[in-house]
Amino acid sequence: MLFPRLPFALVTLAAAAAALGMASISHAQAPQLPPPEATHPVTLQLMQGFPPPPDKIVRLANILKYPNVRWAAQHLRELGPTAAVWRGAGTPSTLPAAARALDDALAFADGKGGTTTLADWQKATYTDGLLVLHRGRVVYERYPAGLQAHQPHVLWSMSKSLVGLLVTELIQEGLIDPNALIPRYLPELATSAWADATVQQALDMTTGVQYAENFADPASGVFQYLAAAGLQPAPPGSSAAKSMAEFLPTLRKDGEHGSAFAYKSVDTEVLGWLLQRVTGKPYATLLSERIWSRLGAQEDAYVFVDANGGPSTSVGVNATLRDLGRLGEMLRANGRFNGQQIVAPATIAELRKGADPAQFDKAPGTAMRAGYSYHNQWWVPHDADGTLEAKGLMGQHLHINPAAELVVVKLSTHPVPNTAFTHALDRQAFAALARAVRAL
Amino acid sequence: MLFPRLPFALVTLAAAAAALGMASISHAQAPQLPPPEATHPVTLQLMQGFPPPPDKIVRLANILKYPNVRWAAQHLRELGPTAAVWRGAGTPSTLPAAARALDDALAFADGKGGTTTLADWQKATYTDGLLVLHRGRVVYERYPAGLQAHQPHVLWSMSKSLVGLLVTELIQEGLIDPNALIPRYLPELATSAWADATVQQALDMTTGVQYAENFADPASGVFQYLAAAGLQPAPPGSSAAKSMAEFLPTLRKDGEHGSAFAYKSVDTEVLGWLLQRVTGKPYATLLSERIWSRLGAQEDAYVFVDANGGPSTSVGVNATLRDLGRLGEMLRANGRFNGQQIVAPATIAELRKGADPAQFDKAPGTAMRAGYSYHNQWWVPHDADGTLEAKGLMGQHLHINPAAELVVVKLSTHPVPNTAFTHALDRQAFAALARAVRAL
Repeated sequence: MLFPRLPFALVTLAAAAAALGMASISHAQAPQLPPPEATHPVTLQLMQGFPPPPDKIVRLANILKYPNVRWAAQHLRELGPTAAVWRGAGTPSTLPAAARALDDALAFADGKGGTTTLADWQKATYTDGLLVLHRGRVVYERYPAGLQAHQPHVLWSMSKSLVGLLVTELIQEGLIDPNALIPRYLPELATSAWADATVQQALDMTTGVQYAENFADPASGVFQYLAAAGLQPAPPGSSAAKSMAEFLPTLRKDGEHGSAFAYKSVDTEVLGWLLQRVTGKPYATLLSERIWSRLGAQEDAYVFVDANGGPSTSVGVNATLRDLGRLGEMLRANGRFNGQQIVAPATIAELRKGADPAQFDKAPGTAMRAGYSYHNQWWVPHDADGTLEAKGLMGQHLHINPAAELVVVKLSTHPVPNTAFTHALDRQAFAALARAVRAL
Repeated sequence: MLFPRLPFALVTLAAAAAALGMASISHAQAPQLPPPEATHPVTLQLMQGFPPPPDKIVRLANILKYPNVRWAAQHLRELGPTAAVWRGAGTPSTLPAAARALDDALAFADGKGGTTTLADWQKATYTDGLLVLHRGRVVYERYPAGLQAHQPHVLWSMSKSLVGLLVTELIQEGLIDPNALIPRYLPELATSAWADATVQQALDMTTGVQYAENFADPASGVFQYLAAAGLQPAPPGSSAAKSMAEFLPTLRKDGEHGSAFAYKSVDTEVLGWLLQRVTGKPYATLLSERIWSRLGAQEDAYVFVDANGGPSTSVGVNATLRDLGRLGEMLRANGRFNGQQIVAPATIAELRKGADPAQFDKAPGTAMRAGYSYHNQWWVPHDADGTLEAKGLMGQHLHINPAAELVVVKLSTHPVPNTAFTHALDRQAFAALARAVRAL
């Protein structure tokens, strides 16, 4: 046992919490978590040595055993097949340092009656990297857990927002009709859950699909999903689908489409598939041509691929913090970055518009994010600043606050696989960062 | 059958020929080969479609079925786990175009009494990319089989020469003693074939090891080697080692070390392991820090890794032609490139010195390369021009001719998995290129 003080309850609670991004655990109900410094992958010597000792070897089969995922999140390509998202041949765009930087000691209310600091927030949320941009300039950048600035880190469900960005842009261009039924583009899904679902319903995750993302239940769809994506071994003795294209057509409808928000990675995988079908291009190529190369990214990104070479568009993208910062700047600046219009201003406006918060609030497990909505694969808090967010399992964040001219990228590996778990604290931190950069 | 005209004999002959890089087939004995244009991976639509049709899906399990390897050679990272060899944060070094370029029609004797051209040589040898540099300037560059300039291509046994370069440099720096026995650095090998072998014997492949690289024999060590590297599924029912660190200690001695040249990938894997042990760094990091980042490479390279995350240092490196051109220029210029001394001039001199050609000629299967020797993992023809070569299965070449100020990079996927098969023709081509650039 690496953490003798860590009760079994953590595993149970984490599992119960794991409806990806959508459980209703409050921060106050925190289980006893391992001390963050005791989960540092370098200090733990995970995957160190030639070869590493058997108990330090991280494989896909054991990444769900915490803290192995802290190493895996920084090295996913070393665990399985991936396709490069080429940064392009051009010179990287500049991310200049600001004249004045933020301080680790920046204090703010922790939402539980006390105060915390920028440094302590990172520690408490098992942060692998934090980058803060103000007016496109770097005001803060830290890598507290072995991640290097040039190393891509897995985005988990933040990947979804890249799919949403591309689909929204192709809708603006008239290449995709948001009101069309999915089988118009993907006849393979004509007898599946998506037979009578529209593109827009998949974008907003209001489809009704017999599928649950529940890590507590070994029979949950999420394990079949991860096996199809190649991200987890197939459950023993299972007849799990061996690729995403095999898995998605097997899912059946549950309830009515369009009636309720229900967060599920398979909606995004359908959209990722659709993007490839419509454009005739592999997802990695599309992301490179339309976004990465035009941002002037510093590094290639990459996407995990399945047994067909199919991309895990919902959870499998990996990128550096600085390149995500460039992406955030582009979104903040209405699609313009690196001297060019990268996506249409109407695309950004559509993302920021959000969906109906009242409908969102009715969905189970959304209490922690009251007032939010989920639209075109982006989180929208409907605040006065016009904030737009991408989020992912274990604490991945791209937070764009146009009014404060602020972009925050935070990549983490929190033991509780649920972004809602630290949601209240994270909101306090983002608000504090907005106040701080306004005062710079 | 993709090639109804392709006799079964090709498979047999190819298999018989496949002592990696070292068989004695003459070009005159050529089997009937598939027309090169019929093996073009893009024309064949390999891995095209979302998902690709089942008969177009390339996996590690079927890459030995020609022509699947033509796709795999350009996309190895999409088939399994890999570690990035980072290009570094700097600006890429320039590879300027020369004022005068070479012509496709450049003619030369084909070694069989006829003539051929630069274009036809590429076609006849199933070329994926050809880059010719004269005085560091690009005089010719072609990608005839779907490979893009920025895409890394597998180097197969050309990878060995990168290991040799690094070991030679560390010998120059006093960090490795070439006369030390291998177990001084790798105690794990104290009861293996390498128990009483020196570093220099492994560098020159004069160790005696019970191991054969024979694709014709399913029981051959090469299949256990490839399974340990993760590059092939383990033979059915076998108890093959699941990593290189597990496999190498199981190999036993055969004959005397130092008495005869015998080409085998396992010697290189021992050296790759030793490099990591001595430096304490993963091979990909070492290659990045010492070579790739200092060359000012344009793209990241990468190396295939096994089930421990251990690198396949002998055959698993992938890089672009232009970055290999930069490497070649550095070697041509006595270790100096991109405004800095990257390896010591003494390292280059050591590589070019070669071993004893008389001893080399005595080894079985070396007739096609009479006059050559193999030293520190590089091929040395002992010609008047001081030529130095790296070579790999199916036609990978880095040809450095200092007297002609010539560097040639040629990456290919010839159906006969043996670089000796086209050796005579390739030599004619390299000589023709030397004459042509001298006349520019």
